[in-house]
Amino acid sequence: MNKLPDIITHFADWYQEVVSLAELADHSPVRGSIVIRPYGFSIWELIKDKINERIKKTGHQNAAFPLLIPESFFKREAEHVEGFAPEMAVVTHAGGKLLEEPLVVRPTSETIIHYMFAKWIHSWRDLPLKINQWGNVVRWEMRPRPFMRTTEFLWQEGHTAHATQEEAHEEVLMMLREFVDLAQNWLAIPVIFGLKPEMEKFPGAQKTYTFEGMMQDGKSVQMGTSHLLSQSFAVSFDMTYQNENGEKCYPHLTSWCGATTRLIGTIIMVHGDQKGLVLPPKVAPIQVIIIPITKTGFDNDLIARTASQIQQRLELSGVRALVDEDMHKTPGAKFYHWELKGVPLRIELGPRDIATGTMIVADRLGIKKETIELQRLEQYINTQLECIQKELFDRASRYRERQSFKVEKLEVFGPELMLKAGFYQSGWCGGIECEQKLRIYQATIRCLPGTCQATHCFACDKKSTEDVVIAKAY
Amino acid sequence: MNKLPDIITHFADWYQEVVSLAELADHSPVRGSIVIRPYGFSIWELIKDKINERIKKTGHQNAAFPLLIPESFFKREAEHVEGFAPEMAVVTHAGGKLLEEPLVVRPTSETIIHYMFAKWIHSWRDLPLKINQWGNVVRWEMRPRPFMRTTEFLWQEGHTAHATQEEAHEEVLMMLREFVDLAQNWLAIPVIFGLKPEMEKFPGAQKTYTFEGMMQDGKSVQMGTSHLLSQSFAVSFDMTYQNENGEKCYPHLTSWCGATTRLIGTIIMVHGDQKGLVLPPKVAPIQVIIIPITKTGFDNDLIARTASQIQQRLELSGVRALVDEDMHKTPGAKFYHWELKGVPLRIELGPRDIATGTMIVADRLGIKKETIELQRLEQYINTQLECIQKELFDRASRYRERQSFKVEKLEVFGPELMLKAGFYQSGWCGGIECEQKLRIYQATIRCLPGTCQATHCFACDKKSTEDVVIAKAY
Repeated sequence: MNKLPDIITHFADWYQEVVSLAELADHSPVRGSIVIRPYGFSIWELIKDKINERIKKTGHQNAAFPLLIPESFFKREAEHVEGFAPEMAVVTHAGGKLLEEPLVVRPTSETIIHYMFAKWIHSWRDLPLKINQWGNVVRWEMRPRPFMRTTEFLWQEGHTAHATQEEAHEEVLMMLREFVDLAQNWLAIPVIFGLKPEMEKFPGAQKTYTFEGMMQDGKSVQMGTSHLLSQSFAVSFDMTYQNENGEKCYPHLTSWCGATTRLIGTIIMVHGDQKGLVLPPKVAPIQVIIIPITKTGFDNDLIARTASQIQQRLELSGVRALVDEDMHKTPGAKFYHWELKGVPLRIELGPRDIATGTMIVADRLGIKKETIELQRLEQYINTQLECIQKELFDRASRYRERQSFKVEKLEVFGPELMLKAGFYQSGWCGGIECEQKLRIYQATIRCLPGTCQATHCFACDKKSTEDVVIAKAY
Repeated sequence: MNKLPDIITHFADWYQEVVSLAELADHSPVRGSIVIRPYGFSIWELIKDKINERIKKTGHQNAAFPLLIPESFFKREAEHVEGFAPEMAVVTHAGGKLLEEPLVVRPTSETIIHYMFAKWIHSWRDLPLKINQWGNVVRWEMRPRPFMRTTEFLWQEGHTAHATQEEAHEEVLMMLREFVDLAQNWLAIPVIFGLKPEMEKFPGAQKTYTFEGMMQDGKSVQMGTSHLLSQSFAVSFDMTYQNENGEKCYPHLTSWCGATTRLIGTIIMVHGDQKGLVLPPKVAPIQVIIIPITKTGFDNDLIARTASQIQQRLELSGVRALVDEDMHKTPGAKFYHWELKGVPLRIELGPRDIATGTMIVADRLGIKKETIELQRLEQYINTQLECIQKELFDRASRYRERQSFKVEKLEVFGPELMLKAGFYQSGWCGGIECEQKLRIYQATIRCLPGTCQATHCFACDKKSTEDVVIAKAY
């Protein structure tokens, strides 16, 4: 059996091993790209189905735009091209010929979608226009890490156009709330959220909202963002409409992305333990693994039949359950295997259980291992799954609290932050020079939570205009 | 109101206009690529959900492999590279630098998936391995046409590995049956199916099965394929496993693709009419459109409330229904709009209907327009949707029968085929020279249906070894 590297002292190695041994993803022959294996992809499908339902319920429609975008499109919005140019993968040849204009494999789709919006929007009656796209994007990464930072990744990108800035801003906040709900109530990851400072905004955005979770090494991960775009995008693509008074106006645009394959990486890093992956029940492809404990001299067919009945009863009550029927493995090897894969609950079924009409149920967190009457199956399992979902969120919240600090001056907390990563909350004058001093400690402002508790800037003597959360980040 | 080109005399123009006016897709600034608009994409989602469910039920798992594939991978299988090289789009620059090895935007994923299979398959216990991928592929098209032939398209590609050729062949046939079921029972398109002749096989396949539908201009469309691959793929990627006797063996591989965005094109071409799109109820994003007929002096709120209640009752009974509440359009304009969009059933609700507790229901085919009591709503609508689904299949079958001909000699039926496209069934000696004579008439062998009714080859004096279906094709 493979022993995982120590999660405390070798977090990065532990992560890589969990990704590999739990069969979530595999390295590919293309630098920086991964293969998402079926088990990892099933987690993605559960995340995707959930947020896709919410995207539709909140009035958006899915569509598909081209993967390849003319290079010149990126140059129309100055800040946008500056932000993305270094990461672009470019198609120069196709159909055996050199292309007249190179095509960029989309790193994000604002430009092509705005080009189409300009064709579709003519009157105030065409607004709001609310579109979402599920797809793959490519950004050339120098330091790839499975799920967290890959050359290609899967995501959704929402793009909307509105008549007023207020309405566009409300859209940006509504989708941020949806994503925070996904993170907290489905992935069981407590998040901080708020505005990004100027330097960290999406290239070409007027405002960027972020939501970020704390990993078990104290570092922050940007899990998703929601942007109020600047008018320059609409101007660049000559996107105008006639308002009710017949005047020519530019629409107000937003874009947002809260679901990417990176979220799988955050689940691993927030909930995993020394035994491997730990999955929140709501995104666990298998919520209950049923392990028949056969014994020579006993009616093992009876155990197998009972295990199968349990599985069917669970599926009927909406629980994703599987029987591990492998005849070549010992029960111990199976326990190890499914713990590594993070399955929330394990049912053990042996001769003694059959005789007494019971089963043993153990949870992945090691909190409970109980003998339960078979007739209580559905009720007990469903309650336990809810408890585990809640406990994972609470556990992550407790960890985050322990690693969150109210601090004042950078020269004091900077060195502390180097030794003990976490969320360091302080005040800020809003100046870029002060922000840049964080680089000494490999930290950045992760978000402006919208509070004003601190009195002074973390770096200079000026008064603080707003609080900031400072952290190291992936 | 836009008048569509004549569907009989200007089929190609009619098609382009329906795609555009029904808001299924739009041209993009990237040559050969389209934007699939929300209405078109909803049809795709219904097709995708259906076949995805069947792919999982038949024991396959979804996964995601890289979009960009090293150019050298394609060269490992000689026939494969020869087939795809002319269509490839190639990334030569990324991250601001020239790449050491160019990357091909996947035109299909056999090579990269087989490379990974070789890493995963070691023992007979790793077999069968049954993987499916949903994604986008790029093939540089010289003569693009929306949905039918686009530079980028969306599809699924299944890839499996088996211990024996028999098992692999059974897999190929099973998935062919699933796709034929999708075409006939969901898209309401009758299809012929069988083997492709040597010349028309997938590059590197041992056997390619196809299923094809006849469009309303008599031309054939290959709707999907299922391939038994030759052992050379396994050899090229050094994919071996130990069998139960400890011997080193090559697995037997398959790949299959039955759901692509091309299917949307076939729905338009098989079922559409002079009024526009006609959607089979099972893939109609809106199955019933409810149109309130308001009147000055009447309680129009009551009409609106009743319309909304009808919509809710239909949704509860599993019917996708929408009320057209637009205050700026006349009922006549709405009728025209939703006919163009191919909605199967229309409910009209005016003051007289409210007074009598009835509604008027008209079907898109123009067969029935009846006054129905509101209390019969769910039962009547569900029955009518089933009837329309069946009638569309029957109507397309009758058309195909009228355009199918048993023929003997090419010099006779060739000129006929030029004037009157359709399925021409004859015999064949199996010779490539005879097959190539079809080019004179812009026709090809579409499939070998597996029968042996004809006595002689369509081109030479030899005996026929099997029947062939000959047609012009998209």
